[in-house]
Amino acid sequence: MSLTYRDTGVNIARAEDALSRVKERIARTRRPEVIGDVGQFGGLFASPGADKILVATTDGVGTKLELARLLDRHEVVGADLVHHCVNDALAMGAEPLFFLDYFATSQIDPGVFSRVVGAMADACARSGTALLGGETAEMPGMYAPDTYDLAGFLVGVVDREKILGPQRVREGDALVGIPSTGLHTNGYSLAREICARRAMHERSLLAVHRSYLEEFRALRGAAEIHSIAHLTGGGWEGNLPRALPAGMAVRIERESWEVPALFTLLAKLGDLEEVEQFDTWNMGIGLVVAIAAESLDAALAAVPGGVALGEVVPHSAGRRVVFG
Amino acid sequence: MSLTYRDTGVNIARAEDALSRVKERIARTRRPEVIGDVGQFGGLFASPGADKILVATTDGVGTKLELARLLDRHEVVGADLVHHCVNDALAMGAEPLFFLDYFATSQIDPGVFSRVVGAMADACARSGTALLGGETAEMPGMYAPDTYDLAGFLVGVVDREKILGPQRVREGDALVGIPSTGLHTNGYSLAREICARRAMHERSLLAVHRSYLEEFRALRGAAEIHSIAHLTGGGWEGNLPRALPAGMAVRIERESWEVPALFTLLAKLGDLEEVEQFDTWNMGIGLVVAIAAESLDAALAAVPGGVALGEVVPHSAGRRVVFG
Repeated sequence: MSLTYRDTGVNIARAEDALSRVKERIARTRRPEVIGDVGQFGGLFASPGADKILVATTDGVGTKLELARLLDRHEVVGADLVHHCVNDALAMGAEPLFFLDYFATSQIDPGVFSRVVGAMADACARSGTALLGGETAEMPGMYAPDTYDLAGFLVGVVDREKILGPQRVREGDALVGIPSTGLHTNGYSLAREICARRAMHERSLLAVHRSYLEEFRALRGAAEIHSIAHLTGGGWEGNLPRALPAGMAVRIERESWEVPALFTLLAKLGDLEEVEQFDTWNMGIGLVVAIAAESLDAALAAVPGGVALGEVVPHSAGRRVVFG
Repeated sequence: MSLTYRDTGVNIARAEDALSRVKERIARTRRPEVIGDVGQFGGLFASPGADKILVATTDGVGTKLELARLLDRHEVVGADLVHHCVNDALAMGAEPLFFLDYFATSQIDPGVFSRVVGAMADACARSGTALLGGETAEMPGMYAPDTYDLAGFLVGVVDREKILGPQRVREGDALVGIPSTGLHTNGYSLAREICARRAMHERSLLAVHRSYLEEFRALRGAAEIHSIAHLTGGGWEGNLPRALPAGMAVRIERESWEVPALFTLLAKLGDLEEVEQFDTWNMGIGLVVAIAAESLDAALAAVPGGVALGEVVPHSAGRRVVFG
């Protein structure tokens, strides 16, 4: 019997069919800088000027994928992936330019694929990001049936003199927190373990990882931003120090915001130490923005729902996120 | 019993340990355009000028990953991933600038991780590409023990007037083939199926997906290149038309190169039709370059081993790769 590639479970035509279903939504993400069509060996995008800095970031969505699959909510992880990348870029002070995705699965289900990639395209369109390309891989045997993994890559742009980061932060800087919409895309292995042990309904975990692009733009216009921490894998202690210079720490008023019920419930059900909660989840604050102290009032006025969390202090020893 | 994130199989410290082992090799990929350190929320890279075009590409290595794991040859897929992206970028006429990787696994094995990412770093260094960032994801339960997936993302740069592609190709253009080093990273599901049925040794399949950057540079200097097809997933008919304008096809002299024994053997063992072979594998030619016919002699002199494959012809109907 003659063997074909299709016999082994790989079907290039199926991938093309799946892609054709979302072609129009991808086309809507087009920006004037995009050159030529999809389907080239590489996506083409006119470079910003030599006075600009490119910001590149890559992310996944972790085991939230499993939940999206179990609850048939594939759109959520598509949007999550784009928003996660956008937030990492804006943490450097950048606006998004273009995005590419990697979609790997055992065998493409065109319906699932078009829901995931369609949601990516919509999230790109909303944030003014061109969906410039992607790779769709069928790997029979490597992924369990019906499972898939996603990776996203985003390039943004920032003026050299507007790059945010630890180098800008001064003692006494105020910290503004932007509320999150749930777990975002991190700490799902722990949350699901807790849910599984308690037969809790997992649907509450699936809120989309929101994008902070609007708040970032509003803050940038109103306040002197120094650095931004996007609270993802590793939670507070894993991410806030990335936005701080050596020798600095943050003092956070634990009472300055109310931890959402979802986190409190998960923590209670899992009998989690508080340090473990804050080292894994965002606990209701998705973004922490360090700003010049004199900008605080203007910042809070610019971002409804923003929280004055605390301030930047000298670091002596031990943890760099200190709750007071 | 109090639960921790570590209990669920995710260990942020293990990821950091794994990364620290390859820090120096990553540092060696640094280019003058890179700003700041690794560990920021996004990698920073000074933009080329506004007269330049960015080329972005993303790839994986497919089920070759399984083979690398079974034969304990993790370095191969690290290099493959970079080379695959570099080749896709040069197919648009671009030189590579920076690369990011996504590494997803059930639980990080720091030894395997450092071999894979170390090989990526070395491949980046060889091609003058900055390894600008990456994402390492532990997803317990989503990947089988000891398995991992990889995605790569590369941004390159090309002068606007030097973008290669179908729009440059003319009837009568000569086609130069650059020999490949084996299957590259495509058609592994079929090849492995054949090997498994015949108990053939799979080691012969694991040659690294080579980079054609040197040949590309030499050809660019010697010949008038019009377009390039990188023969990956979909083989000849799946990739050559991407480098051709509408209404054009290619006539390939089937005798102009010798199909390597590996392909002949696989085809024989799998009892594969010739069309299936050429639709899946590169058959010994990794890159097909369309050049002005008068450049052919200069091109062949510039690239030792290069093959005069045939020419660009009008397309009437049916397949666009015609073997004569």
